[in-house]
Amino acid sequence: MLDHSHIYFFEKLLDKENVYNDKAHMIAYSYDATRAHFEPDAVLFPRTEDDVSTILKYCNEHGIILVPRGAGSGFTGGALPSKGGIVLAFEKHMNKILEIDMENMVAIVQPGVINMDLQKAVEEVGLFYPPDPASQNYSTIGGNVNENAGGMRAAKYGITKDYVMAIRAVLPNGDIIKAGKRTIKDVAGYNIAGILIASEGTLAVTTEVTMKLLSKPKMTKTAMGIFDTVNSAMEAVYKTMASGVTPVAMEFLDNKTIRAVEQTYNKGLPIEAGAILVTDVDGNLESDLDFQLAQIEKVFRENGCDEFVIAQSEDEAADLWFARRRASQALSVYGSKKINEDVTVPRAVLPQLLKEFDKIAEKYNINIPCFGHTGDGNVHTNVMVDGKDPEQVKIGYEAIKEVFQATIDLGGTLSGEHGIGLAKAPYMSMAFTDEEMNLFKTIKKAFDPNNILNPNKMGLD
Amino acid sequence: MLDHSHIYFFEKLLDKENVYNDKAHMIAYSYDATRAHFEPDAVLFPRTEDDVSTILKYCNEHGIILVPRGAGSGFTGGALPSKGGIVLAFEKHMNKILEIDMENMVAIVQPGVINMDLQKAVEEVGLFYPPDPASQNYSTIGGNVNENAGGMRAAKYGITKDYVMAIRAVLPNGDIIKAGKRTIKDVAGYNIAGILIASEGTLAVTTEVTMKLLSKPKMTKTAMGIFDTVNSAMEAVYKTMASGVTPVAMEFLDNKTIRAVEQTYNKGLPIEAGAILVTDVDGNLESDLDFQLAQIEKVFRENGCDEFVIAQSEDEAADLWFARRRASQALSVYGSKKINEDVTVPRAVLPQLLKEFDKIAEKYNINIPCFGHTGDGNVHTNVMVDGKDPEQVKIGYEAIKEVFQATIDLGGTLSGEHGIGLAKAPYMSMAFTDEEMNLFKTIKKAFDPNNILNPNKMGLD
Repeated sequence: MLDHSHIYFFEKLLDKENVYNDKAHMIAYSYDATRAHFEPDAVLFPRTEDDVSTILKYCNEHGIILVPRGAGSGFTGGALPSKGGIVLAFEKHMNKILEIDMENMVAIVQPGVINMDLQKAVEEVGLFYPPDPASQNYSTIGGNVNENAGGMRAAKYGITKDYVMAIRAVLPNGDIIKAGKRTIKDVAGYNIAGILIASEGTLAVTTEVTMKLLSKPKMTKTAMGIFDTVNSAMEAVYKTMASGVTPVAMEFLDNKTIRAVEQTYNKGLPIEAGAILVTDVDGNLESDLDFQLAQIEKVFRENGCDEFVIAQSEDEAADLWFARRRASQALSVYGSKKINEDVTVPRAVLPQLLKEFDKIAEKYNINIPCFGHTGDGNVHTNVMVDGKDPEQVKIGYEAIKEVFQATIDLGGTLSGEHGIGLAKAPYMSMAFTDEEMNLFKTIKKAFDPNNILNPNKMGLD
Repeated sequence: MLDHSHIYFFEKLLDKENVYNDKAHMIAYSYDATRAHFEPDAVLFPRTEDDVSTILKYCNEHGIILVPRGAGSGFTGGALPSKGGIVLAFEKHMNKILEIDMENMVAIVQPGVINMDLQKAVEEVGLFYPPDPASQNYSTIGGNVNENAGGMRAAKYGITKDYVMAIRAVLPNGDIIKAGKRTIKDVAGYNIAGILIASEGTLAVTTEVTMKLLSKPKMTKTAMGIFDTVNSAMEAVYKTMASGVTPVAMEFLDNKTIRAVEQTYNKGLPIEAGAILVTDVDGNLESDLDFQLAQIEKVFRENGCDEFVIAQSEDEAADLWFARRRASQALSVYGSKKINEDVTVPRAVLPQLLKEFDKIAEKYNINIPCFGHTGDGNVHTNVMVDGKDPEQVKIGYEAIKEVFQATIDLGGTLSGEHGIGLAKAPYMSMAFTDEEMNLFKTIKKAFDPNNILNPNKMGLD
């Protein structure tokens, strides 16, 4: 519980309307997209960067925990106040697109801006912000930067970190810093923006982000390939990428996922197929798109693709994407509890990774349907169990541990885009040596010696 | 001077042939591409990462300064032992390309590999490593990563940091860490590779780098535009980039640079022109290249370009590039001492930046010819003075300070690609606030509490 003197301080600073500490709001801010929940002691809505600075300085002096929160759409509990304290929320005030600089192809945004709002605003003027996490309709740029969000277009366009040119942030001691500039190149001083990205709000509070924009490609085409086996589809993925074309997206569904979608939506999907790959290509010239699609079809057909379909209209493209977009929801046919991970491996070991997952599914007699961003080696791995059966849930988590081990053994990472937060903290020691964990802790301590900023995350304490 | 017991320790560890401490070698390792020189007390050639770890642990325990060195081709003294101590050199042993992984499009290299050797090796198998600093024929990947080197192709392909997927490094205490993976996405733990890039060897010693590779584009075309005024050329630069094409390179020479090259080489250059822009486009389809060139020509002609030439052969392309490639050497017609900086601004303020430079040149009655990577806002700014006249040299440095101030006032950076090192350390406080400098110092101290690793650089002490 926060002492009333603290609440009084914040109410005086921000006005009462920007300080919540009633039970209903505490419950509302206790959740994210995991099923864990932890109530904060208060929720503050800073109006300005100076507010953020004053709040941090005060909390640092009084040892009050502070957890920055975007939309609360994270999959790993990164924005949950697992040790209580204050949630700092940006959706009320610090939610503006401050500038779209068309000449330099840059956007300046506050942390509370919703990803899709930024995408739409820049597309209206012919520019393009590629990172498109599945949460794009509600997740915020502040959250995207702090988790280094990915998305469907990462195969060609990279992830959030590839678009961050500068970050303004407040350090735990209240110091306001700017890291980076509206320039393509900048090698003066340490790359502070580089370490803030993906730091899950544990090092500093982001108050403004400068994002690189691209020109919006004039056209996109969609194609789908149907494969006999998941192995041949995985071979086709990395061979396509190595053949000289870079599709915007290269997404897959395995047989179990195809069956789940078909069972749920009756779309006439090929339920005998080992896998489906759906791919988008883009560019400014019809001939370029046709060249890319011809190359993809060639590699697909050389690698076990029986059927290759190119969408001839936007409706047909939406049809080809339907199964992929509904995959996550449809999996409930396999159990009420889905333990979903976003492990990522070097693309060429995708065939081996999926074989390992098959072995794990067989060993525990469970379903592990997979789909996801194979163009960048990122597999959404879903361990499905009966959520009402504690024994099943226990088995599910044992299987997940083996999923992580198989991933790490193949040179992969615990998380391609969701982060560590609370949910994956127990697995950090599988992925990192003591020396590496010590370095993380040293960095955390350098930025935040009193451990007030989003403590208890990333396996650091 | 190093105590002989230390030399004995290193000779025992590395064999005598890998420990130099004779005068001739100390002189040889006292230089880089600046004219400053500082002799080390010894030069060590580690054979393995374990050697590096043992050396760092020993130096950390005994308070011995250690300076990692690539090819010594830096422009800011970053690899100079300005406080004495040991130079750690990688050219003898840790200079191998360990693997080119074609399936994952990744190269694993040791720090002593020369940039061009990596470029050639990957191009032989159809892949592409874009970063091409002017020093590419001799500078090393270790140096490139630690300075975050840029190059001609940055406008389209970005800089070194955009290709670093993972770094193995040894911390000052001897701990060996790996940061990053052979995966496109990885958000587990802090982005240590992000902070090591551009850290100028002050935080850790790089022992291995995993580099992302691209498919080699099948063709390149070159064009040149001649402009009445430098202002109109600068307008054309950012308008081209914003128009939807992204040239590989977009390089410029101002009138003074054109005249210097013509005076030196007699190539029939347009000495009345305000500026020349030279540009490359690349891709896999002739039609795509033609589309890009047509778009560039259109924007150029709308912005004061009188003459636009497309090279019809490799020889013609080399001709168009000739002036740009010889620009640096030719400038000696303006004075024996060149104080060259690599300031970078947001592209759209290039016209204003060059106007400011004109004012500074006029004020001090000196020549400041400019050329460089305008596609990414990076201007090689050359303050030319008579090196034998101390008064002229003093005036030159006063002018440089104003060059930096104008750059900073326009939202630019002290350095686009050369780093800070010793040469720009005095200007750091112009570019960063006390809070930002404190953060840099805090990070340095967290990694290197005894300040043994490349001290006295980046304005940190």
